[in-house]
Amino acid sequence: MIGVDLGGTNVRVALVDENGTILQELSRKTEASRGPDFVIGNLIEMINVVQEGTDVASIGIGSPGPLDPYAGVILSPPNLPGWDRVPLVGRLREHFSVPIVLDNDANAAALAEATLGAGQGHKSVYYITWSTGIGGGLVIDGKLFQGAQGYAGEIGNMIIQPGGFQHSNLNAGALEAMASGTAIGREGKVRLGVTGGAEEVFRMAADGHDGARKILDEAVDYLAMGIANLVHTVNPEVFVLGGGVMQSQELVFDSLCDRVRSYVYPSLREHILLKPAALGTKAGIVGAGLLGLSQ
Amino acid sequence: MIGVDLGGTNVRVALVDENGTILQELSRKTEASRGPDFVIGNLIEMINVVQEGTDVASIGIGSPGPLDPYAGVILSPPNLPGWDRVPLVGRLREHFSVPIVLDNDANAAALAEATLGAGQGHKSVYYITWSTGIGGGLVIDGKLFQGAQGYAGEIGNMIIQPGGFQHSNLNAGALEAMASGTAIGREGKVRLGVTGGAEEVFRMAADGHDGARKILDEAVDYLAMGIANLVHTVNPEVFVLGGGVMQSQELVFDSLCDRVRSYVYPSLREHILLKPAALGTKAGIVGAGLLGLSQ
Repeated sequence: MIGVDLGGTNVRVALVDENGTILQELSRKTEASRGPDFVIGNLIEMINVVQEGTDVASIGIGSPGPLDPYAGVILSPPNLPGWDRVPLVGRLREHFSVPIVLDNDANAAALAEATLGAGQGHKSVYYITWSTGIGGGLVIDGKLFQGAQGYAGEIGNMIIQPGGFQHSNLNAGALEAMASGTAIGREGKVRLGVTGGAEEVFRMAADGHDGARKILDEAVDYLAMGIANLVHTVNPEVFVLGGGVMQSQELVFDSLCDRVRSYVYPSLREHILLKPAALGTKAGIVGAGLLGLSQ
Repeated sequence: MIGVDLGGTNVRVALVDENGTILQELSRKTEASRGPDFVIGNLIEMINVVQEGTDVASIGIGSPGPLDPYAGVILSPPNLPGWDRVPLVGRLREHFSVPIVLDNDANAAALAEATLGAGQGHKSVYYITWSTGIGGGLVIDGKLFQGAQGYAGEIGNMIIQPGGFQHSNLNAGALEAMASGTAIGREGKVRLGVTGGAEEVFRMAADGHDGARKILDEAVDYLAMGIANLVHTVNPEVFVLGGGVMQSQELVFDSLCDRVRSYVYPSLREHILLKPAALGTKAGIVGAGLLGLSQ
């Protein structure tokens, strides 16, 4: 099948087999500012190149949200400025006769990690991408649980500190505003005057800087509360953590696990299972391919 | 089938048909303080009386949590003092040969409301009991989603105000500590000196007392944030609200709906659906009966 990873910076189109192997891949700059028509035209060309000579069964697209997976419409993602209610699936249907599925990028990665990555073998998996933003996806019995309007997994907007910092169009004190890479970078600037964002805070923390460690510690604490809230609302068998912040996993992961355990019922503590993601950057595009397969 | 509602005050045993009609019902005081052996002995007697002359297919039991629905063990519920890891299902199996299922009382009510009550016809239902405590249950495609250890729906322990009030063995600032009937009664006492609990605060609010209205308003706001968090993590098609606080629904329900909408993505607002529970006090025992049916 064809997997499409439509990002704010790059578009990637790959031919993926059912084992998640990428057989061929093509990548171009998105140039989102040139508008939907330009990007969609590009996308059609790329899909034609990649599927040349093969019989693809489906096309799956992972895109920044918010979007409507049921209607196949991209709403107005901060990462695709100027896109507003673009009926991407409808536009592609004029050119391809196979089933076409659209979902958000975190859901695509969730599906890949749940079925082929760190969540393999688990009945219910909550995937969390801990990066510039915070997103997620819930997979039950190998299938994405999208929710009634496709907003299951939008945990970045979970309120974790009422009246807290407001970030982009999210709730005040939303998880993403308190615990994301962006939040870490923001606090680094405010408290320590660093201008290199989360990465610099991580470097300083690795060198033993107390102020930097405290910033990470607070972000970890907020994310731990968010994960504990998922335990008490969904209770998935495993949490899989991916995204850019997890590249500094040695600084944050153990304390994250400890904190989550401290926020759940004592009878649950020994059962709490968190795992680092296993598929790296290919999760998004492989998952996009699997989206189509699930039809 | 047989439905058992094992409460801290009363035990009820009923013969229930598949339409949720209660054909016969027997009720006794629980006398939990006399210990598990006494209560279980009583329960066996009651089941024998109610099933007399009929061919029951299953026994379902709704009990206060925490409990392990997979092992059929009641852990150590605040409402059944002195009960500690009681293998209720195992004990009953010595006397009855039909399938026996145990789950918490909120899950039982959730199943009844989702399949026969206000959630009927909806693909995914999050039932919330807003009462002395706050609990819930998630039903997907007519089946309870219990989670890996049976803690899906334990939303009373969701952290909604980090460092907030700590109540019983819950997290500091847990939803139940901030928005339950107990929380309303506590604030009434602290701020207004009333000793009649939540009921008195509701009466005062109905009479237009500003301080009492403010207390309700704050509880409504916290619950709205909790529900918005469920929208962004599970996104169920409908929320069904039951429990004692909902008996004063004219004071809280409309503002609850408005607040929830204010805390979700703008693109979701028109889709948010909250409904008052429809089955009243029989939800628990009918749902207990359905628990057995689901085996």
